[in-house]
Amino acid sequence: MKKIPSDILSQVIKKRNSDSFKGTYGKVLLIGGNQNYGGAIIMAAEACVNTGAGLTTVATDSVNLSALHTRVPEAMFVDYTDQKAILALLSKVNVVALGLGLGTEENAIALVKLILQNIAENQTLILDASALDLLANRPDLLSQLKNLESKVILTPHQMEWQNLSGIKISEQKEEPNCRALQQLGSNITLILKSNHTTIYDSTHQDIWQNTIGNPGMATGGMGDTLTGIIAGMIAQFGNSTQTILAAVYLHSYVGDLVAQDNYVVLPTAISRLIPRVMHDFQK
Amino acid sequence: MKKIPSDILSQVIKKRNSDSFKGTYGKVLLIGGNQNYGGAIIMAAEACVNTGAGLTTVATDSVNLSALHTRVPEAMFVDYTDQKAILALLSKVNVVALGLGLGTEENAIALVKLILQNIAENQTLILDASALDLLANRPDLLSQLKNLESKVILTPHQMEWQNLSGIKISEQKEEPNCRALQQLGSNITLILKSNHTTIYDSTHQDIWQNTIGNPGMATGGMGDTLTGIIAGMIAQFGNSTQTILAAVYLHSYVGDLVAQDNYVVLPTAISRLIPRVMHDFQK
Amino acid sequence: MKKIPSDILSQVIKKRNSDSFKGTYGKVLLIGGNQNYGGAIIMAAEACVNTGAGLTTVATDSVNLSALHTRVPEAMFVDYTDQKAILALLSKVNVVALGLGLGTEENAIALVKLILQNIAENQTLILDASALDLLANRPDLLSQLKNLESKVILTPHQMEWQNLSGIKISEQKEEPNCRALQQLGSNITLILKSNHTTIYDSTHQDIWQNTIGNPGMATGGMGDTLTGIIAGMIAQFGNSTQTILAAVYLHSYVGDLVAQDNYVVLPTAISRLIPRVMHDFQK
Amino acid sequence: MKKIPSDILSQVIKKRNSDSFKGTYGKVLLIGGNQNYGGAIIMAAEACVNTGAGLTTVATDSVNLSALHTRVPEAMFVDYTDQKAILALLSKVNVVALGLGLGTEENAIALVKLILQNIAENQTLILDASALDLLANRPDLLSQLKNLESKVILTPHQMEWQNLSGIKISEQKEEPNCRALQQLGSNITLILKSNHTTIYDSTHQDIWQNTIGNPGMATGGMGDTLTGIIAGMIAQFGNSTQTILAAVYLHSYVGDLVAQDNYVVLPTAISRLIPRVMHDFQK
Repeated sequence: MKKIPSDILSQVIKKRNSDSFKGTYGKVLLIGGNQNYGGAIIMAAEACVNTGAGLTTVATDSVNLSALHTRVPEAMFVDYTDQKAILALLSKVNVVALGLGLGTEENAIALVKLILQNIAENQTLILDASALDLLANRPDLLSQLKNLESKVILTPHQMEWQNLSGIKISEQKEEPNCRALQQLGSNITLILKSNHTTIYDSTHQDIWQNTIGNPGMATGGMGDTLTGIIAGMIAQFGNSTQTILAAVYLHSYVGDLVAQDNYVVLPTAISRLIPRVMHDFQK
Repeated sequence: MKKIPSDILSQVIKKRNSDSFKGTYGKVLLIGGNQNYGGAIIMAAEACVNTGAGLTTVATDSVNLSALHTRVPEAMFVDYTDQKAILALLSKVNVVALGLGLGTEENAIALVKLILQNIAENQTLILDASALDLLANRPDLLSQLKNLESKVILTPHQMEWQNLSGIKISEQKEEPNCRALQQLGSNITLILKSNHTTIYDSTHQDIWQNTIGNPGMATGGMGDTLTGIIAGMIAQFGNSTQTILAAVYLHSYVGDLVAQDNYVVLPTAISRLIPRVMHDFQK
Repeated sequence: MKKIPSDILSQVIKKRNSDSFKGTYGKVLLIGGNQNYGGAIIMAAEACVNTGAGLTTVATDSVNLSALHTRVPEAMFVDYTDQKAILALLSKVNVVALGLGLGTEENAIALVKLILQNIAENQTLILDASALDLLANRPDLLSQLKNLESKVILTPHQMEWQNLSGIKISEQKEEPNCRALQQLGSNITLILKSNHTTIYDSTHQDIWQNTIGNPGMATGGMGDTLTGIIAGMIAQFGNSTQTILAAVYLHSYVGDLVAQDNYVVLPTAISRLIPRVMHDFQK
Repeated sequence: MKKIPSDILSQVIKKRNSDSFKGTYGKVLLIGGNQNYGGAIIMAAEACVNTGAGLTTVATDSVNLSALHTRVPEAMFVDYTDQKAILALLSKVNVVALGLGLGTEENAIALVKLILQNIAENQTLILDASALDLLANRPDLLSQLKNLESKVILTPHQMEWQNLSGIKISEQKEEPNCRALQQLGSNITLILKSNHTTIYDSTHQDIWQNTIGNPGMATGGMGDTLTGIIAGMIAQFGNSTQTILAAVYLHSYVGDLVAQDNYVVLPTAISRLIPRVMHDFQK
């Protein structure tokens, strides 16, 4: 197991080329936010936009439209019950993040199926939160990960990984985790979230550990913010292990900055600081 | 009557253990906010989240969803007419605060009954504002406090305490207050709000007075913010007299900070400062 | 014509007594904000709450609830088509401001009638914007001002005053203005807004001119903010000529502060600064 | 091709005359924001209000009302399906910006037709985003530009200009652009957006290039913010080539300021800074 190198941000965050436009920086589709958990998808959008994705669209319940546009007017909206509109969007984006505050009701299942069937080779699919819960309960859907040609990122915390992999939290060690991940598919990156988040890469079979971050970040919405950062980073810098490591590191690095003055580190406080921190590390 | 010790914050606010996750810091359910008083429950959520509760859910009228998610995307939502959903949530939380902007209509009565019947031993129930009005008018419900196995906190201002206890404001002295509190139940903490808020502990029969705070805080929403802080503190540090004293003190301490530069101390200005103040006192 | 004295703020803004509660600082009812002009009543609420009114309630169209609670969670809401609720509230407040973004449709007329019929002796009624338009077109309603026992404040800009008084803008001099005001009633203060706002007091027949302020303040919503400040000041310091002069002066004084760094002075920028400025002038 | 002179801001931004009122600074009508792209019109309104337009009204889908009033309470609202209300407003404004997040559905077409038929000689019509898409697909509407007596501004990015003019991006050079513009009409200014935005004036046949700005600005919503700034500048300083150049320059100038500390330059970060920057350049 390697540590994420402390210069990962300057490795990944490129000074922008003056000859570029918003399309250069990728298109992201974030899907989630039912009538109870709208904040999750809004916080992810906030993180994604502040990370610098070129265009961010949020597929969510229509009750969340007002709060979304108020907090993140830069993000576009699509009703997450409108499969046709989502399918049209899907073909145009680089990154899809699915599951944040999505719930596990009928529409959630339909969306997971829709995305698994239509995600394409050159795209990245991040499966988070409710999507992981759903997959854990639906072996038929989980087994589809094997056949996906897109790159997949899973972002479970330890309990979600237990449900997905069958490995108890106390036994979530490198070897069994690697084996379980290999069984899920060969094109998957696992971001196993804990106080020492570990990244498993099923393609290169590398394992990386995040050594920064702080317990002030142990609060609701922190994972949604991480997923938004990952999506925004991949949209701009492409899906590589380096990019994913940089996203995890950036999230914790900004969290540590906020914790210098704050007891609890609110997810939205992280998003607000991202543009400044990325500025300092661009190369 | 003792004074709340001036080192109460560093007694209570623990440096967070690095080996922790959001569940470590408790789950709070805030119930209130009808079609007229949505701001009350939103301000409580804002205070609770900024105090550092692990997970905060707000049961309120659906008209308040947008404003809630906009101001506090970290908080989750449940429709307060959905008793089934509330009951499911109830079994998972550590702290319930009931009554902020709830009103006294039919649904409010139903919610008070639901919570009184289902709150459990290891939980804390904070009764505030409309819930206190309702109990004052319903001796049958008020008498149920005696039989609760959960810990109870009442947060009346002086007029609400007059209605609850029958003791006129001018006669709200230590002895009659203690006696009235004993009659209500043996597991109750009374936070009697005034310009010298006094805390009565029916278990240990201690009385504590808050000696800080300022009249700039005499403005609508200040009590809602206090309740949110109490809930957030108990979620993280457990329900003890110390924690309750620290919550009352923290509220006034931050209010005094804001008053150094501001004529009126807005409740939301207090919430914004809480993470910084708690940072400085953690031990 | 006198100039508003430059020490008016410290004459009026009293250091708060420690033995006080939110009721001490008055209750305000703001009525306005139809489906097109919701921002007007929200900006007034923002100004009123930041000025320090004890409790502020906003009667407006229900489409404005979310934006109101998001910007000013300290304010309470009532549906402005619910006359029964408004009547119940009316009896409990010290100050009513009527007309901001109200429009002149049927419900607006009903509200003007309701308030004119029910406003009581010990209350202040501020008539602004749409309410002035309505009165200008309805001599039957305008003539009721004579019979009101409450104190009345009119806040027209020059064109609104032309419509109300029949005096053309170019002829709006001291004498004809005084005469027209006397004809409207004997208990009315006229705040005639222009780049040199002039205050006419029909009781004492004094005339005062505001000599501060700046043209950066010439932008939509500035009048709504002034009305919110007037309401908040009267709620706390009582309705006297001194209080009204202080409100007008405070509005311009803060506007001048904002203009030191800003080309346009946004109304919401003024509201944000009010608590700090009032702090510096309290005595 | 000339460069926009670096003193353009102090040439255009006039110190406000003390003897002025909000009407002096113009009235703007912004039309756009369907159920998916509400953020676009909100960001334009935010830019327009911060630039200092006297009165700003937004015609948009009613689902966007809450977010609009929350972010920009200074702006007024009209339902964009209410043609009668829009027509009434149209006759009172100086500047109309049409198309931001408007979509290309039936109501969008109806609005483009309505405005093209009713815009008057002394008004400026800015056509942006969806309005340009629509015109590109409707030669019958596009040809109406020729007959308009109002001044027209087109703000396409390179792909939109390709669709409008038939000139491929790689061939969008001075001469063919000029010729295509002349064919569209003789009273049109073309703001061709790219990393070196170029302004073509069909009346004087001048061409100007913007030499500032940065690639951090390549993010969704940046064009909407530019349009809001153009509208706000013309409302105050009149429609002249100088004003248009100053608007483009101001947008990039503030973007460069934001980029000094931030990796991505969010559109809303630009709007927030505008009043301060304009303050420093007023003459």
